[in-house]
Amino acid sequence: MVDTASRTTKTDAKTETTARATVPARPARDAADAPIQAPPAPARPTAPRIDVESLGRQLLGTWADIRLEARTRAAHPDLQRIEGQSKEEHRERVLGQLKILVDQGAVHRAFPKALGGQDDHGGNIAAFEELVVADPSLQIKSGVQWGLFGSAVLHLGTEYHHETFLPDIMSLKVPGAFAMTETGHGSDVASIGTTATFDEKKQQFVIETPFRGAWKDYLGNAAVHGTAAVVFAQLITKGVNHGVHAFYVPLRNAKGAFLKGIGGEDDGLKGGLNGIDNGRLHFTNVRVPRENLLNRYGSVAEDGTYSSPIASPGRRFFTMLGTLVQGRVSLDGAATAASAMALAIAVTYGNQRRQFNAASETDEEVLLDYQRHQRRLLPKLATTYAQVFAHDEFLVKFDAVFSGAADTDDDRQDLETIAASLKPLSTWHALETLQEAREACGGSGFLAENRLVGLRHDLDVYVTFEGDNNVLLQLVAKRLLTDYSKQFAKADVGAMARYVVSQTAERAYHGTGLRRLGQNIADLGSTARSVAELRDTDTQRSMLTDRVETMVAEIAGRLREARKLSKVEGAALFNRNQNELIEAARAHAELLQWEAFTRGLDKVADPETKQVLTWVRDLFGLGLIEQHAAWYLINGRLSPKRAQSVTAYIDRLIERLRPHAQDLVDAFGYGPEHLRAKIASGAEQERQDEARAYYAAKRADGTLPTVEKSPKR
Amino acid sequence: MVDTASRTTKTDAKTETTARATVPARPARDAADAPIQAPPAPARPTAPRIDVESLGRQLLGTWADIRLEARTRAAHPDLQRIEGQSKEEHRERVLGQLKILVDQGAVHRAFPKALGGQDDHGGNIAAFEELVVADPSLQIKSGVQWGLFGSAVLHLGTEYHHETFLPDIMSLKVPGAFAMTETGHGSDVASIGTTATFDEKKQQFVIETPFRGAWKDYLGNAAVHGTAAVVFAQLITKGVNHGVHAFYVPLRNAKGAFLKGIGGEDDGLKGGLNGIDNGRLHFTNVRVPRENLLNRYGSVAEDGTYSSPIASPGRRFFTMLGTLVQGRVSLDGAATAASAMALAIAVTYGNQRRQFNAASETDEEVLLDYQRHQRRLLPKLATTYAQVFAHDEFLVKFDAVFSGAADTDDDRQDLETIAASLKPLSTWHALETLQEAREACGGSGFLAENRLVGLRHDLDVYVTFEGDNNVLLQLVAKRLLTDYSKQFAKADVGAMARYVVSQTAERAYHGTGLRRLGQNIADLGSTARSVAELRDTDTQRSMLTDRVETMVAEIAGRLREARKLSKVEGAALFNRNQNELIEAARAHAELLQWEAFTRGLDKVADPETKQVLTWVRDLFGLGLIEQHAAWYLINGRLSPKRAQSVTAYIDRLIERLRPHAQDLVDAFGYGPEHLRAKIASGAEQERQDEARAYYAAKRADGTLPTVEKSPKR
Repeated sequence: MVDTASRTTKTDAKTETTARATVPARPARDAADAPIQAPPAPARPTAPRIDVESLGRQLLGTWADIRLEARTRAAHPDLQRIEGQSKEEHRERVLGQLKILVDQGAVHRAFPKALGGQDDHGGNIAAFEELVVADPSLQIKSGVQWGLFGSAVLHLGTEYHHETFLPDIMSLKVPGAFAMTETGHGSDVASIGTTATFDEKKQQFVIETPFRGAWKDYLGNAAVHGTAAVVFAQLITKGVNHGVHAFYVPLRNAKGAFLKGIGGEDDGLKGGLNGIDNGRLHFTNVRVPRENLLNRYGSVAEDGTYSSPIASPGRRFFTMLGTLVQGRVSLDGAATAASAMALAIAVTYGNQRRQFNAASETDEEVLLDYQRHQRRLLPKLATTYAQVFAHDEFLVKFDAVFSGAADTDDDRQDLETIAASLKPLSTWHALETLQEAREACGGSGFLAENRLVGLRHDLDVYVTFEGDNNVLLQLVAKRLLTDYSKQFAKADVGAMARYVVSQTAERAYHGTGLRRLGQNIADLGSTARSVAELRDTDTQRSMLTDRVETMVAEIAGRLREARKLSKVEGAALFNRNQNELIEAARAHAELLQWEAFTRGLDKVADPETKQVLTWVRDLFGLGLIEQHAAWYLINGRLSPKRAQSVTAYIDRLIERLRPHAQDLVDAFGYGPEHLRAKIASGAEQERQDEARAYYAAKRADGTLPTVEKSPKR
Repeated sequence: MVDTASRTTKTDAKTETTARATVPARPARDAADAPIQAPPAPARPTAPRIDVESLGRQLLGTWADIRLEARTRAAHPDLQRIEGQSKEEHRERVLGQLKILVDQGAVHRAFPKALGGQDDHGGNIAAFEELVVADPSLQIKSGVQWGLFGSAVLHLGTEYHHETFLPDIMSLKVPGAFAMTETGHGSDVASIGTTATFDEKKQQFVIETPFRGAWKDYLGNAAVHGTAAVVFAQLITKGVNHGVHAFYVPLRNAKGAFLKGIGGEDDGLKGGLNGIDNGRLHFTNVRVPRENLLNRYGSVAEDGTYSSPIASPGRRFFTMLGTLVQGRVSLDGAATAASAMALAIAVTYGNQRRQFNAASETDEEVLLDYQRHQRRLLPKLATTYAQVFAHDEFLVKFDAVFSGAADTDDDRQDLETIAASLKPLSTWHALETLQEAREACGGSGFLAENRLVGLRHDLDVYVTFEGDNNVLLQLVAKRLLTDYSKQFAKADVGAMARYVVSQTAERAYHGTGLRRLGQNIADLGSTARSVAELRDTDTQRSMLTDRVETMVAEIAGRLREARKLSKVEGAALFNRNQNELIEAARAHAELLQWEAFTRGLDKVADPETKQVLTWVRDLFGLGLIEQHAAWYLINGRLSPKRAQSVTAYIDRLIERLRPHAQDLVDAFGYGPEHLRAKIASGAEQERQDEARAYYAAKRADGTLPTVEKSPKR
């Protein structure tokens, strides 16, 4: 929030201010309506100090310069949201902004060099994510145009499609929709109802919407701006359904009217992202040339014969969907950016706002001096840090796969698992953080001018689009179970027997806990562990890892019975474990974030910065353990006494981190030109100073009225 | 959601449909993207059955007829929100709706009979709450006009003010603002900066805003419509500040222009409630006659002498504020109504929506058959039930105090504690429930036409206005500590000694737990307890009570040290316990809700309904214990094995309740004319039926394409 140059000076000034704080002035007995008095703010310690500039550079990640450039762009008012516009005005504004991005050459980084792009997948996403700072509608509408519509042509199409369609998509001459989702099918793309039946005579595909539930729905660019779409449909030729494929379909003529056979509806006002014209589409005997099948993974010859480089229809389908993972990557990054902005606003305000007693003679505590206020914001700050580190690793992985540097089946599967792990956690976290920040700013947090509500409205849908969060976590859980069972399949009969024995033995040892076969983690049971151990990296790692592995093993153990059951009973058994499966997936994702944070720590050169950041990492790790304390207690991994000391240590960490809160949000690198929140502008500080000066002057010249005395008590 | 008359028939139809459900059709190995298959929906049991109509009647509470009448009114389109209006249009519409309410005689129930009211305080609030169904802006703007502005004149003013000002307030001839909050002071009303200095010569009060932080802020009716206000200011006469008092102050002339000395600003767009013209006001040498002091609790004679029926300035202040508790009452009720609507929408949709396999030959599970979906919605349904019962008791208490039937100091204090307990929990719950419901409805939940996002935007501010939730819970905590210390004060020295001994003994027994002096609750420690015990009412009560008492005793024990400390150190000690204090207050509020639910159960006549509702209460009670399981484990109140059985039993309860979910939301009594959500209209069911019919017909006439076979595996 503060510019880097003047940071040190400001810090010193703050130290002085807070050091002057003394006694709360109003006696508690007369202030039953007042929150409990906080102590005077702790003086800002002289050491350790965060090197905000170098930390900030680290947080920018692998594509730091591209990210900075994108932020500079996002700071321009022409690209920023104007609060209060009607959805029509907002939609037109965002379309215009897309054109600005084209003119600035800001959106073609991922496209082939041959077509004017740079084949830079990681950098492209890094830049794209930062658009959320300007307006989430701009981010998502860009994503629809180039990340979905354009990407589908790029990744699902072949040379003909690239040459024929990509130039106009890149230049925005053809705004387009990504017509996958149907009203009747949210997350179940494989079951969509739209059909594309090959007509040999005319060498055309006939696109057909068979019933209302098969209308395409929630499509950006569909309501107004889209003149073409990539339409996903069941490819049918010679009476056989070859599953979902993508087709390039023109939608509207130059005047914006639907072409013959195409109809649609506006999705109307939404909970947010109203700069995007989401809508519905349906198709009645809409014919496109055979060549409009995006045929990288499946072709139809003139005679109607279907062929594909991938024999299994299931694997083919998931390969096709897999090319679209970048949506999830960018949502993870954008959600993290929004969380960082929310915290920058709320922490800056919390460091200026004095809730009580401007009239008193002493300086008083600011909001962030209250323990509750710290407990509301600082753990969210720690999680946001974890996400920043995890996201950069995620983006590196994405870039390796999409650049072809490391693009095996395993790499692609890992990438999808990471995406399905991180996107749910970071998008939910963004909503929680924006909400907590808004509440922490009170009534002013509710004003649009302070941006928190607008960002929250826009980001709401991030938790259910590009894969519903709960569905994604189930994918992760399935992967965990598969990995587990693979390991199990290799075990011989002897191992099987040992497994059963071990299960019983473990149960006795850990109460009701169950350990993974061959697991070799230090016992975290009833032996007393000191605080030093809790903050030990290996201890945190083993506790978090142990939880994931134990949960997966337990569920797998229960599901093994399913093999003996009928399909119906088996499904019922599976369903009875669904909630816990999702919890296991979440635990896995939390571990990924913690590991990334820990690796990030290793790269911090400045020892004082590293010290503070280690506290932040500990707050994140121990916060997870506190959150899941019941599990650790039930499974004998923590004694009651140790569980209490986790909470006590978190309290201490928060006290320690409180003086560093401003530096930690400043390091995110968002300036006033990005935050654009009046309450984080320093206006609050000015108001406080003015109020104090008023009372000081009245006191000095003797014109301050005396306060009515209470009768004797 | 369904009309009462046809309910039984519909239920039967549903039973048949779900009974037909059999095996999930698509093999799991080809459906890695699909959520884990749920088992076929359980058939709706023949018994127990809920008597929806009689339960519905009970849920309407003490003022059932008034509530029904208000709902009928709220079902009229003229009073309902039009999504997508600009804030200007919305503001004008809501002002017009206020006039409709006046014409219908709907808003004067709380005013004196002599002035055309009915002196009916409970009924008035019951009716007022239901306005949230039509549009939360309408509820809150009505609340500003009659519940705050009018109420202040009624409760803080005397006969002169009633006769002079109330008629025009009641008729809306004078729309007014309630000018209490200032930019610089949110929850700390005692410290506001605005002054009202008595000028003996002119027999006037001079209202003055001394600095920017003392501008009145966030005031409904201030930006545009208000022509007068009740302004809270420090009353100064003869050089003495007698604390905050209320003054009747004209704001604007007939043309809507500010009167001399008055200025202001529009708060602009907000995160919701944009039908209300919130704004800021400031005063420069604004003079009002001496008589404009609302002088029920404090008067200034012509010679400037101040007098009050309440000698203590502190008590006087809180008595004045106490007359305004009804805002908190009505927010509790309105938040509960919004939660009920959200669940009615999400459960209805979850009972119709089939996510997967419309193309398969068998009927498939609906969303609500998935365990995770149930886990997301049913516990929230249980909490909403608890709130409905708790709110009715709260309203009865409020009515007793305000009607004078039971209006001692203790009654008023109890009322305020209940308000400060329930309002935070129910308003937070509304936000969580609206969000979960919106996510459970996927993309369609994000469309404004399905109302969830709009309601959530509007209710967002409920958690910080009329008392910030965190501040309110601190009030509750203070009350709990006060009660605890009173009890302690009576203990003689012998008891003190015993306390210390007992503390040590308890610590040994419960690990780190600490029991309340003289507490006599059955031990819930390591002895194995059966599920039967967990669902026992007394067990739940003692566990929930024990937690509150133990937390308070522990904190009190720690705070006793504060007496020996310096003020600064004492404040620091207090602050280090702030978070836990708030958690204790929350535990207390949860207990209040649980107790009310349990008393409500006693009033259910129909045994089958009572059976189902007992499960709902158990889900609520055990849900609280599960949520706080770490505490119970750490403090030796639950063994690890028992803690696990709590979760297992909750899973069973949820399975049992699942077939009753629709009845349970139907009993809230909101029809389609209230919900106005397309997805809860039956449209989804129609779409499903159409899709199935399409595939059935294709299958019958042999035109359904065969599915491409996988190569051998």
